[in-house]
Amino acid sequence: MRRVYLDHNATAPLRPEAREAMIAAMDCPGNPSSVHAEGRAAKAIIERARAQVAAAFGADGADVVFTSGATEAAALACAGRGLAGAAIEHDAVAAWVDGGLDVDGAGRVAVPDPAGSVLQMANSETGIVQDLPQGLAVTDATQAFGKLPVAFNWCGAQMALVSAHKLGGPKGIGALVLRRGTDLAARMKGGGQEMGRRAGTENLIGIAGFGAAAEAAARDLADGVWDRVAQMRDKLEQALEVAASGTIFVGKGHARLPNTLCFSTPGWKGETQVMQMDLAGFAISAGSACSSGKVRASRVLRAMGYDEAAAAGAIRVSLGPETQEADLMRFAEVWLEKERKHRARAA
Amino acid sequence: MRRVYLDHNATAPLRPEAREAMIAAMDCPGNPSSVHAEGRAAKAIIERARAQVAAAFGADGADVVFTSGATEAAALACAGRGLAGAAIEHDAVAAWVDGGLDVDGAGRVAVPDPAGSVLQMANSETGIVQDLPQGLAVTDATQAFGKLPVAFNWCGAQMALVSAHKLGGPKGIGALVLRRGTDLAARMKGGGQEMGRRAGTENLIGIAGFGAAAEAAARDLADGVWDRVAQMRDKLEQALEVAASGTIFVGKGHARLPNTLCFSTPGWKGETQVMQMDLAGFAISAGSACSSGKVRASRVLRAMGYDEAAAAGAIRVSLGPETQEADLMRFAEVWLEKERKHRARAA
Repeated sequence: MRRVYLDHNATAPLRPEAREAMIAAMDCPGNPSSVHAEGRAAKAIIERARAQVAAAFGADGADVVFTSGATEAAALACAGRGLAGAAIEHDAVAAWVDGGLDVDGAGRVAVPDPAGSVLQMANSETGIVQDLPQGLAVTDATQAFGKLPVAFNWCGAQMALVSAHKLGGPKGIGALVLRRGTDLAARMKGGGQEMGRRAGTENLIGIAGFGAAAEAAARDLADGVWDRVAQMRDKLEQALEVAASGTIFVGKGHARLPNTLCFSTPGWKGETQVMQMDLAGFAISAGSACSSGKVRASRVLRAMGYDEAAAAGAIRVSLGPETQEADLMRFAEVWLEKERKHRARAA
Repeated sequence: MRRVYLDHNATAPLRPEAREAMIAAMDCPGNPSSVHAEGRAAKAIIERARAQVAAAFGADGADVVFTSGATEAAALACAGRGLAGAAIEHDAVAAWVDGGLDVDGAGRVAVPDPAGSVLQMANSETGIVQDLPQGLAVTDATQAFGKLPVAFNWCGAQMALVSAHKLGGPKGIGALVLRRGTDLAARMKGGGQEMGRRAGTENLIGIAGFGAAAEAAARDLADGVWDRVAQMRDKLEQALEVAASGTIFVGKGHARLPNTLCFSTPGWKGETQVMQMDLAGFAISAGSACSSGKVRASRVLRAMGYDEAAAAGAIRVSLGPETQEADLMRFAEVWLEKERKHRARAA
């Protein structure tokens, strides 16, 4: 059975450009901290990738500190600062948030004190996009980077978290992007790497892949690839909506990621839907991947005011540049058939 | 000019087995936290690598927590614990050490309170090997793992730090190995990965490479590859020793890593030697790679009682399984010629 991967917000398949850059970096034997020719060649790979990430993220002139992913970047940016944040933030950010910010029914967050707050650019589960206030302390750009035309230098935030594997780079590499001159205490110590902000021998191969993926993602974005994806997503939404009257489409009509469709069928658990669709050949998710092992209602939907049944019945379908419309229509057919069976059982 | 890489303690070239495993993992699109088939396949790659690392490190039944490298593992194991350690520990460990332990002239560390101390298995600069006391809190096995027949389950320590890139795996991945049941607070939060001890989407490709490299390194060790390397190292040492009378061979006659040769020519700066040998086609280092960008005397040699001139004149030659004896003899020839010139200038 041919598999259809519709879980790009959990992680995206590796882009060919990233693969190629990673394999090339495998031939470089040096440690980027070494002063000899092999070390300098390794350092050059890292600095090239840093420039690629900065350019793709509209962050020329800002500092790009490579980390082991957005989770580490979140800890580096937020730990011990007492920042306020909303309940819709990713767990990796929420873990460091002290104060609660209000979320309205449309998933929008009110930020009375931007300089003391963290706010995501786009939500991983619903795709809903926020208007960032000027002077924001930290923004989580993990889902937005690569899918939306965002530029760090214009987004109004002091720092941003990004991740490679959400845009077709490898897992295990990300970055904290900061306005130049921002104070930042290292959490990993014992080496001068990353301008003294993050000790430890650099993930050379992963960084090379991140740079290449970011560059390719920016090109896709400029080429309108995501407009085509958004049209497919809307078609899927329409196909499901006309046939499944008891299903709620979260974020519909609001600004959201071009690739994300979140919908809930109260009374039919998201986990069950994920397993049924998995057996039918489709990879989707309920909630975010990091918590999808646990059977519990979506914290994001609860924060938006949905009741427990609606929050527990939500699934997320997230498309990628390589997603085919025929596969989406087949997804709709299969899901609707299972939804009819669910209704018959429930009746 | 053909380059000869003699800086394996800084970082080792990627083993073919690691390369192959990494390229295979590139085809796995899933997030290990996802419950669908793609996610389960990714999880299986990680668990296989975990078993490979545990087996190679003699740590069956212990917990292997993957981190972004030994530096992160050091922070996870040591931060906030007020452990004692010697001045010869790596910077990534020394950054978290509160009390000083005595080092003797042979580079051996006295550990009066093992349960409150950290001690390396082998030193990165000199290769000198320690006898670990029973009940040690933490050991840094970064340089020993893969080069010495060590087994975590028999080493007497509660936790050990290991790194992939020192044994032919990729940079940016390592692990903290712990006796099962050891308490450990996560430093990266917001996800249940690594048994709740280290949040963040796993470095799938890097982990696959670490597992394959560890397995290959253990096989090399069992096959006696390092005995051959040690013989070559000793030959190099003899060749240098008979001709360079003003040079000190650090760790000679003591238990040390089979691949490491540290020697000092007081009055001839290590940095200068590294640059001269680099121009002649040889990659070596002065001090550890992480600090080799800075021109300063070796902290390790100073702690052993060497004076400033000796500590500043040290270089490290570190061999790998692929090192050829002819290249080493050529190294000796070139270095001795430069040493004669240095003496002539100094006279």
